[in-house]
Amino acid sequence: MKPYGIALVGCGTVGSGVAKLLLEHPQRLAARAGRPLELRRVVVKDPAKPRDPLIPKELITGNLREVLNDPSIDAAVEVVGGTGWARQAVLDLLAAGKDVVTANKALLATHGAEVFEAGRRHGTAIAFEASVGGGIPIIAALAQGLTANQILSLQGILNGTCNFILTGMSERGASYADVLAEAQRRGYAEADPTLDVDGTDAAHKLAILAQIAFGLAVPLASIPRRGIAQIDQADIRYSKELGYTIKLLAEAWLEPGGGEAGGDKAGGGDKAGGDHGGGQLALHVAPVMLRHLAPLALVRDAYNAIFIVGDAVGSTLYYGRGAGQMPTASAVVADLIDLAIGRGQLTFRSLALWSEQAHRVTLRPPGTVPSRFYLRLMVEDRPGVLAEVARILAHHHISISSVIQHEAMDGPDGDIVPLIIMTHSAPTGSFLATLGEFDRLDCVTAPSVYYPVGD
Amino acid sequence: MKPYGIALVGCGTVGSGVAKLLLEHPQRLAARAGRPLELRRVVVKDPAKPRDPLIPKELITGNLREVLNDPSIDAAVEVVGGTGWARQAVLDLLAAGKDVVTANKALLATHGAEVFEAGRRHGTAIAFEASVGGGIPIIAALAQGLTANQILSLQGILNGTCNFILTGMSERGASYADVLAEAQRRGYAEADPTLDVDGTDAAHKLAILAQIAFGLAVPLASIPRRGIAQIDQADIRYSKELGYTIKLLAEAWLEPGGGEAGGDKAGGGDKAGGDHGGGQLALHVAPVMLRHLAPLALVRDAYNAIFIVGDAVGSTLYYGRGAGQMPTASAVVADLIDLAIGRGQLTFRSLALWSEQAHRVTLRPPGTVPSRFYLRLMVEDRPGVLAEVARILAHHHISISSVIQHEAMDGPDGDIVPLIIMTHSAPTGSFLATLGEFDRLDCVTAPSVYYPVGD
Repeated sequence: MKPYGIALVGCGTVGSGVAKLLLEHPQRLAARAGRPLELRRVVVKDPAKPRDPLIPKELITGNLREVLNDPSIDAAVEVVGGTGWARQAVLDLLAAGKDVVTANKALLATHGAEVFEAGRRHGTAIAFEASVGGGIPIIAALAQGLTANQILSLQGILNGTCNFILTGMSERGASYADVLAEAQRRGYAEADPTLDVDGTDAAHKLAILAQIAFGLAVPLASIPRRGIAQIDQADIRYSKELGYTIKLLAEAWLEPGGGEAGGDKAGGGDKAGGDHGGGQLALHVAPVMLRHLAPLALVRDAYNAIFIVGDAVGSTLYYGRGAGQMPTASAVVADLIDLAIGRGQLTFRSLALWSEQAHRVTLRPPGTVPSRFYLRLMVEDRPGVLAEVARILAHHHISISSVIQHEAMDGPDGDIVPLIIMTHSAPTGSFLATLGEFDRLDCVTAPSVYYPVGD
Repeated sequence: MKPYGIALVGCGTVGSGVAKLLLEHPQRLAARAGRPLELRRVVVKDPAKPRDPLIPKELITGNLREVLNDPSIDAAVEVVGGTGWARQAVLDLLAAGKDVVTANKALLATHGAEVFEAGRRHGTAIAFEASVGGGIPIIAALAQGLTANQILSLQGILNGTCNFILTGMSERGASYADVLAEAQRRGYAEADPTLDVDGTDAAHKLAILAQIAFGLAVPLASIPRRGIAQIDQADIRYSKELGYTIKLLAEAWLEPGGGEAGGDKAGGGDKAGGDHGGGQLALHVAPVMLRHLAPLALVRDAYNAIFIVGDAVGSTLYYGRGAGQMPTASAVVADLIDLAIGRGQLTFRSLALWSEQAHRVTLRPPGTVPSRFYLRLMVEDRPGVLAEVARILAHHHISISSVIQHEAMDGPDGDIVPLIIMTHSAPTGSFLATLGEFDRLDCVTAPSVYYPVGD
């Protein structure tokens, strides 16, 4: 059968991994695609730069035109990243009749509508399994495996760098700075880790999953997000003491109707988003405290995992390496095989992602989203403090689930003690309103620290 | 677009679940399939029997011909089960030009070659996501998501009944008989649970997964299998003491070359089964002792999970409900949507399952498969016993990793004590050869008990 012609656009870590699979396992891939997958061009910024000797020199070019104008190239793999040059390259490739496989979550999360519309207009397809969860076939699970379901919730550990850092802080008691340095030495974190540790990368991935699962194009600015750089070792210790583990989660869940306070995640989603329901979608990226035996709490190091609840299937979980050269290349090449078979094009068309379809699901105002919370206040060790704090919570109708206050230690801060409070479920807005009041109390000596608590 | 016409063949628990999804969520499913999914016939053995009132009476028939001869029916869902009437029905449906969705693992595991060949001959497709792992999209993961990989190993908890029973025995210290009775009350176990508890059901599912992952048609008789009915509460306790949990696993893994003893699972698979490697496939269904924090050890109750290692993607895991009405219906309806879109037909053709393709992978003789083992001997509490046992193991070149022997208890068996030995990795055949020798020792008072130990 006619070979399937492929161009690589970008040849960094992931691109080299894709080239490796294509060039080292041609028989395996041809058997699975029903035709040979042939690497025909590798577009790079600097053609003079030394490359993996595996890649034939004559394939390398600095000019995207050589792909756009080559009728023997059926699909291009965009692994440049970012939303500048890559965005225009993807649009040009689609316009030139090339199907596009991309691992670029920033591009899809911020320009998904434009890119998908271009694919539909030109009759070309976009496949993006590698954009979320590395080698885990999570896009396929949502787009195909679970299509009979209304998805009720999804919770993911979607950033391996953050999970590696939190694992180190939790298991070895190391500081944020020390584990970050180790992650950088091991290649799990970039020299500038900002987009990973501040939750932006996870928010990009959550926007993509939410689009598939709920049909809603979520502007990045609508995803409340907190990162992990501010997490104090003390809170990791206290959470352990309470039987919890802190994980950076990207979460989205449907709530029935809108606005009413005091519901809870587990109970709320049941009737939401059915054929007639509509419903409101709550979503955020945040460090969340999970019970220490919850499935996602057990995911260690640089692994990713996604927990998905559907109305027919119930709870499902998908786990694997969320980044790295070969896991990501595994997803890219699976997409290429899908396109070579003709299946990827059908999936692209059937999903109609980021299209103008009418959405029944709307975004829930973040302040109305109910959650349990962990709260740590540094307070003076004197009578009446707990009463003052409890009064503020009561005033906002937030009830207390448990309290820990240890005896004061000797030392310079001997009369300042941490007061740890776990609340019952309350609207996020009400809870956040209490924080300003705590910080104005004379007996509270440092800004309050809080984390949502998972079910 | 033209509706996609569907017939249900069989209307028990799973069939009713499929009908429920089709009839209660027509808009949702039409949006995802790009066309309406219409239930047009329900074939049952006894049309007079009362059914769920949701199913329109006029759809019910006792005659398969009404499906075979109806050109408005595109696909049939076979949820009758078994290999008798169902086998002929599936062959007739394929011959009549109907695509078939089936949850029937026994049929595929024992008549896969015949059924798939019929599909190819008649240009019709077979989809079977629901046959393994209930609602978990595990067939799609192997057939699509991981196609860039050579699969190196797969390990599954594939029988929810057994996992429910083992969870109860482990967590509550209950006896096999008591938890089985509870499973039957809750509908997790059939009145006659034989095919579940003896490992046959898991072996059926393993044969299907092995066909997709390794391209090898494995006759059921070639899968060594042990069930859970003989598991003694005592061994569950001792395994806990050693830091292990007993799970019924279905496992398959590639070994490089053949025959040499003393390799180990984790190290062995690395170079096996590449484009040039071939390799030998070891597989079995057995109660296996897993370290108590291993991912599969944490899977509780009636849940299923499959741990898959690929040469590019590394370790991945898939988890969810492995049985039950709506999880299984979720998988069946996903297959129907796949077929309505035209994707299922492409998958069926590209996989060429149970075809006459030349296999480079061969079955490894079970006796040569290396494993660690747990061994319990009931021995007389007198000097020299450990020496005799150790001498037999040494004679077979099996080295001991750890030993537990508790002090004798007072009571009728006061002078009989359990001797627990954990071995290092050894060829299964060598280990099994020691058992007969132990049982012939005067100091050993009961048949020896053993379980393989996972990595």
